[in-house]
Amino acid sequence: MVDILFLADRATRAAYADLLPAALAGLGIDARIMARTDAPRQVDYIIYAPGDDTPDDFTPFTSCKAVLGLWAGVEQIVGNPTLTMPLCRMVDAGLTEGMVEWVTGHVLRHHLGLDLHIHGQDGVWRQDVAPPLARDRHVTILGLGALGAACGAMLAHLGFPLTGWSRSQKALPNMTCLAGADGLIEALRGADILVLLLPLTPRTRHVIDAGALAELPKGAVILNPGRGALIEDAALLTALDRGHIGHATLDTFATEPLPAAHPFWAHPGVTVTPHIASTTRPDTAARAIARNIAGHESGAPLENLVNRDRGY
Amino acid sequence: MVDILFLADRATRAAYADLLPAALAGLGIDARIMARTDAPRQVDYIIYAPGDDTPDDFTPFTSCKAVLGLWAGVEQIVGNPTLTMPLCRMVDAGLTEGMVEWVTGHVLRHHLGLDLHIHGQDGVWRQDVAPPLARDRHVTILGLGALGAACGAMLAHLGFPLTGWSRSQKALPNMTCLAGADGLIEALRGADILVLLLPLTPRTRHVIDAGALAELPKGAVILNPGRGALIEDAALLTALDRGHIGHATLDTFATEPLPAAHPFWAHPGVTVTPHIASTTRPDTAARAIARNIAGHESGAPLENLVNRDRGY
Repeated sequence: MVDILFLADRATRAAYADLLPAALAGLGIDARIMARTDAPRQVDYIIYAPGDDTPDDFTPFTSCKAVLGLWAGVEQIVGNPTLTMPLCRMVDAGLTEGMVEWVTGHVLRHHLGLDLHIHGQDGVWRQDVAPPLARDRHVTILGLGALGAACGAMLAHLGFPLTGWSRSQKALPNMTCLAGADGLIEALRGADILVLLLPLTPRTRHVIDAGALAELPKGAVILNPGRGALIEDAALLTALDRGHIGHATLDTFATEPLPAAHPFWAHPGVTVTPHIASTTRPDTAARAIARNIAGHESGAPLENLVNRDRGY
Repeated sequence: MVDILFLADRATRAAYADLLPAALAGLGIDARIMARTDAPRQVDYIIYAPGDDTPDDFTPFTSCKAVLGLWAGVEQIVGNPTLTMPLCRMVDAGLTEGMVEWVTGHVLRHHLGLDLHIHGQDGVWRQDVAPPLARDRHVTILGLGALGAACGAMLAHLGFPLTGWSRSQKALPNMTCLAGADGLIEALRGADILVLLLPLTPRTRHVIDAGALAELPKGAVILNPGRGALIEDAALLTALDRGHIGHATLDTFATEPLPAAHPFWAHPGVTVTPHIASTTRPDTAARAIARNIAGHESGAPLENLVNRDRGY
């Protein structure tokens, strides 16, 4: 019997109440979802999603073998000094598929100039606005983890010339891979469309500041389905107002929900989407968690383990 | 020396004036672009794009070995009784790539519900509108020629379950292939998103009429980058007004440019794009024509030969 505590809001707990034990049973693990009033020392695994009423003191869970995050990003929990047990991020096929669809959809939207047609149903036949082919439009992806690599593979399949940048040097097919401070400048300079899929760490916070924005070519488009604080909002608004940045489509924000008074909502150069680029889907996420727990119970190392020094 | 006559408007002729002889020279063919005042009997090949001032009597070209169309569609020329020499359609990598980008972009636009966000920058955080994954959205493609097959391959790569329908039974990977009248009804019934890429022939004219529209599931989206007359406009407008069809994004029309007074422009359920889904690009098209001429001069059969009975 494996005892699992679900630290998340009520709706999230309800979504997994049947799915997770069923997924574990399918892998031969007899599991029990615990009540919060049960003894903390009995907890074998914690499933965690940050929320207003989610406890953040992990000291009482003396027998807990791992904390399994429900989200791809762990910046709200990785620095918690009471969390001394192993911490895993969510890496899930549904999460990756959703992100690939959102990124590919918005890259093609900007590449094809769809907004002009969606807004401009005015009877004017604008045949001179045909876009170049994808093979002549350069896309740069910052962040080459599971999500960045999958998005890059799909965009390369569509023909876009791709540059990727990551903290440590990577080698991916169909992509020029860069790393380091000089690599970042080179990656920005070549970006007609820039996609942000970096984890949020003290080193990546505000990586897109006034200096980085100035390196982008005039008219560049920014997509941020990663983390809001990768961008310095005021610097982006200034670059949009000056016409240096052509458009920004943002799915993540330093404060969420994005306050109704935030200038991003009203700016004609910004499209806000409400953190929907990729949502953890209970059916596929429950199977991912079950695989990790079942594997660990049979002696395998935990998957998607967070490196506390690196921050993700 | 190969003598080539370019029957197209002035701008089109100018675009190819240098590109085509250069492409032919690259394949070892010495070519001359003729003037219209030169003797018609000297013409070896005609490059043809329908236009207001394009002659349509091919009788004088007694030595012409082939007419090579600049467009993928040949419905304006295939029935011409004076055109007795071989007729070829344009099949060009640039044409295919552009079509794949347009179709993939608009399928993702409707799949992801992008218009809601593009139009709705009103400060409301609508997080409950996350779409299903592509794997749960069914796309049907009518027409499985070079363009339909390429679009299908890309959409399958993105995860969409696909059904394809064509005049004669085909077999394509990652797609359920149907044919015939019963197959058409089955293909329509399963279509969350319907893509029209059929050639225009007497048999396909108004294939999407009131009866076909009624077979589509409620809320279905139609994309027509094929030929305008595949759709019966009045029947589509009625189905949109009734809410049976969710949206139509149309790139081709029975009359082009689409007249400013046509109800498609003002209808909130219709997006008009000005026949830009796929444009013949002079650089890649010149190379495609040069390959066909050079091959034929060395004894190979012509590529992309139109079957006059079939009509494409």
